[in-house]
Amino acid sequence: MTGQRSDARRNFARILTVAEAEVAAHGADASLEQIARVAGVGSATVRRHFPTRKALLEAVFTQRIHALCELADTLRGEADSRAALLRWLRELLAYSLAARGLADALSYQPLTDASDETGQDSCAAVIEAAGAPLLRKAAADRTARADITIRDLLTLIVGIALATENHTDPTVQADRVFRFAIQGLGPTDT
Amino acid sequence: MTGQRSDARRNFARILTVAEAEVAAHGADASLEQIARVAGVGSATVRRHFPTRKALLEAVFTQRIHALCELADTLRGEADSRAALLRWLRELLAYSLAARGLADALSYQPLTDASDETGQDSCAAVIEAAGAPLLRKAAADRTARADITIRDLLTLIVGIALATENHTDPTVQADRVFRFAIQGLGPTDT
Repeated sequence: MTGQRSDARRNFARILTVAEAEVAAHGADASLEQIARVAGVGSATVRRHFPTRKALLEAVFTQRIHALCELADTLRGEADSRAALLRWLRELLAYSLAARGLADALSYQPLTDASDETGQDSCAAVIEAAGAPLLRKAAADRTARADITIRDLLTLIVGIALATENHTDPTVQADRVFRFAIQGLGPTDT
Repeated sequence: MTGQRSDARRNFARILTVAEAEVAAHGADASLEQIARVAGVGSATVRRHFPTRKALLEAVFTQRIHALCELADTLRGEADSRAALLRWLRELLAYSLAARGLADALSYQPLTDASDETGQDSCAAVIEAAGAPLLRKAAADRTARADITIRDLLTLIVGIALATENHTDPTVQADRVFRFAIQGLGPTDT
């Protein structure tokens, strides 16, 4: 029984990893059949985990957001609080560029503050909560301005992702704009 | 005949001004009837100038882009090249926030570089050409970094507009992010 359960967990983890890569490559057009093929499981198994395309995309987002939260927790222990914050923001930017739709979802953050019918925290609220301690630590260390909020930073990242997604090389242009915008972050001159 | 023609020009200018305000308020849902009412002309007159909703939106965009080009020309004469550049960027941001769809159109800039079937310059190409001399002057005066391109700046502005359009108060949040991002622009510390 335990063996079966851990098999299922491993299966699910593998499917999710493949799904993430497929969604990164094809966005909402990711094929469940292709995911089954690459993961080496039957289509039925994939469909049991992800009955709909929407369920698949949500699982991928949830996975990414979970990874961002874990990364934030890890980075809180870093001595260089500015480097930790920037590392986390770059990861958020990379995820937003890879997962078409994540930046869109995040851009709705202020509306979801006001009313949340599902009772669940919105994507944006979870991400803000994860990143806020990194910004607070950097501000306390005077490696980031105290008048910036985590929402300002998220708005910047989401904006860069949205503005570059139609570019021929989004990653390069996003990185250029990120670097130039962040150089205003410090009291430290860079 | 001259009187009639200048009447028609004044009519068109008034309709366009009203159309701009309506589009700012209601985006693509702007009502041609409401525009006619506010401009104090008949619906037929409005429809003669703008046979379709698309024609209306394009006229409003063209008007705004024309105004941005004129502003850039004026600002080239300013002694404070950094202030001139920032003034122009703020205007672009304000237009992008007011005209839903302008930021979307601008986000496609790199694709339109490659092939332009219509033979017309894309919105983005016209705006880049207008802003580039302001950035060049600021870079020459060492009031802006020399490694930033006008495309980087446009990407930033478009991104801020796209990321804040669903916010409860887009202008306030857009201004916060703009100020914080621009403080990385200088060799000058701000």
